[in-house]
Amino acid sequence: MAKIAIMGFGTVGAGVAEVARRNQEIIARRLGEEVYVKYILDVRDFAGSPYADRMIKDFSVIENDPEVEVVVESIGGAKVALDFTRRALLAGKHVVTSNKELVATHGRELLEIAREKNVNYLFEASVGGGIPVLRPLFQCLAGNEIEEIYGILNGTTNYILTRMVQGGISFADALKEAQAKGYAEKDPTADVEGIDAGRKICILSDLAWGKEVSPADISMEGISSIHLTDVDIAAAAGYRVKLLGRAMRLENGKQAAYVAPHLVSISCPIATVDDVFNGIMIRGNAVGDVMFYGRGAGDLPTASAVMGDVIDAVQHREKRRNLGWSQGAALVSAAELPMKWYLRGNFSLDDARTVCGQAEELRTGAVITGAMTETQAKAAAGKLGAVSMLRVL
Amino acid sequence: MAKIAIMGFGTVGAGVAEVARRNQEIIARRLGEEVYVKYILDVRDFAGSPYADRMIKDFSVIENDPEVEVVVESIGGAKVALDFTRRALLAGKHVVTSNKELVATHGRELLEIAREKNVNYLFEASVGGGIPVLRPLFQCLAGNEIEEIYGILNGTTNYILTRMVQGGISFADALKEAQAKGYAEKDPTADVEGIDAGRKICILSDLAWGKEVSPADISMEGISSIHLTDVDIAAAAGYRVKLLGRAMRLENGKQAAYVAPHLVSISCPIATVDDVFNGIMIRGNAVGDVMFYGRGAGDLPTASAVMGDVIDAVQHREKRRNLGWSQGAALVSAAELPMKWYLRGNFSLDDARTVCGQAEELRTGAVITGAMTETQAKAAAGKLGAVSMLRVL
Repeated sequence: MAKIAIMGFGTVGAGVAEVARRNQEIIARRLGEEVYVKYILDVRDFAGSPYADRMIKDFSVIENDPEVEVVVESIGGAKVALDFTRRALLAGKHVVTSNKELVATHGRELLEIAREKNVNYLFEASVGGGIPVLRPLFQCLAGNEIEEIYGILNGTTNYILTRMVQGGISFADALKEAQAKGYAEKDPTADVEGIDAGRKICILSDLAWGKEVSPADISMEGISSIHLTDVDIAAAAGYRVKLLGRAMRLENGKQAAYVAPHLVSISCPIATVDDVFNGIMIRGNAVGDVMFYGRGAGDLPTASAVMGDVIDAVQHREKRRNLGWSQGAALVSAAELPMKWYLRGNFSLDDARTVCGQAEELRTGAVITGAMTETQAKAAAGKLGAVSMLRVL
Repeated sequence: MAKIAIMGFGTVGAGVAEVARRNQEIIARRLGEEVYVKYILDVRDFAGSPYADRMIKDFSVIENDPEVEVVVESIGGAKVALDFTRRALLAGKHVVTSNKELVATHGRELLEIAREKNVNYLFEASVGGGIPVLRPLFQCLAGNEIEEIYGILNGTTNYILTRMVQGGISFADALKEAQAKGYAEKDPTADVEGIDAGRKICILSDLAWGKEVSPADISMEGISSIHLTDVDIAAAAGYRVKLLGRAMRLENGKQAAYVAPHLVSISCPIATVDDVFNGIMIRGNAVGDVMFYGRGAGDLPTASAVMGDVIDAVQHREKRRNLGWSQGAALVSAAELPMKWYLRGNFSLDDARTVCGQAEELRTGAVITGAMTETQAKAAAGKLGAVSMLRVL
């Protein structure tokens, strides 16, 4: 029997307890032993909970109990979660988490401790919720040089953008709707400003190229200033506006990562990923393009990924998974990457061609340029008096 | 250094050699040791090949060389490949394959030998080519009760159906085009009659529910009798005709698997999987729907999956992957599964409602019925004088 502890009994923690209970038999059959939730750590009281007998408030109980093999960290944030994760690893316990903030900011250090203590630190649920994507990336695609990763990494903003295009409503109204449905938080900043997606693209980048890319080092642009007009023009011309996290390896061996809204052609499978769903495209030099699609959040989907990691940690209790990354990524700013741009304003196609060299008209006063850096695009937008500019995938 | 042998130097075998060469450094960095192709077994001569010094014709060289840790079987078929795989496993070597016919028909027996000899028999490339799908299924989703799997498992037929809907050409013409492009073989039977997809849905089913489902035990219907008229009517009504492999767990604990063309609503992500691409949807009781998308065939994509398995086999050289399935699946015939049907003929909507109880008109003389078994649908089609009938997902 593998005994585990859950730290943080919020949405994810409760989901993990529920999956462990509901799928107890099938998990035991696949793993060859039972997974038993011995403790649930939370500062709050849960009187009447079916887990009341296992609720504890003191982390040291977990830390000092040699029976606890795997600790699920679903506290969130990078303060208490960091302290407890560090201590759990140092106590020789495997740690599994859904905490993208912690992995993105302290993953390197925590994986280093895990290596020293010969335990696993696994975090499949930190990107794409329940969608299997990190393990496929570092394991199934291990024979590839990864060239690029891009995707819809945040369900809240994808819901908002989907409602804008399908419902013809503004960002502000779509956000209110998302909040009413529980898809967006009261303070939606981390979602709508691209911070959540930024943490996830950092983790994908860390795993793909083995060099740490910190959220602080990349540019993140959200969707709060997206105009419905541009969403509509794009849609009529066969594009969808999507908030993408992107990371790529450049020909000079350097790399880049950023988050920004993009126009995506509907011929690209990512464009048809709607509502709260996530879709992540990975391009390898052997496999070509592969995409992973599903629910990027929610209690049970996230718990599915956590439980997959718990099972994996137990299966690798003797010989840990060789995971980790080092410092020293050679980052190129997103502003220096040449790409096509969407510009809208009170200008003619001829004007646009004069200023940008190359331009394709979506409708009067709305064009897609040839490849330009952000600096060049901003200069062109200035000359043309453009009121909107967006990247094109 | 991990020394491997490749058996069969066709498309896949040559792809594996190419990926091992091209991505040598990155593979060594990830694995912590080099992967070296020591032998390539083929009955043919490859004079002037850069691998000429490693080409052999006698399997016993591989069998008797203790240095060879992993054998890649890319021979195909279930005769020589079966013999060599069995002998390689008995000789204590890990075997990695892309051979869906062999895994679908003899996987249970070969995994049993692998277990006895404590070696790995891995076959990610046998389903979905380069797309990571089997490992995500048995590992990342191990915390789920799998409820259903369906998908486009054959690129050749998907190319043909895509050309029919996009090019407005008949099955026969689209097949000729696919053959000219090298997507379809001279004898396209295994692809167009659903046999290839059938083998793959059996493997998915074996892994999902742990019980052997043999290709001989399931019904397989291909696309050779699909009329362009029906493809067009479906397209105009918001559906795509797709050849799906489907497998599901029923409420009574029994299971079903089959291959047949279906109408798929374009609101389903599987409907937009076009050309030679594959898309596989897996529904788990925790994760909900997740989809895996990419190139389901081709030398390098398939080699990507094979190389991922080679790396995994080496990482698990001491403690093998716990994979396998037993006999005794309780199968329900696809004919007994209630589902909606598309019927076309010279009948009115009222006729259809009288006969089927429930019917939705796509256009005059073309309806989608309520849920019925195949027997019921055939009876209804007979009464209505329908000339076409297709399942609806």
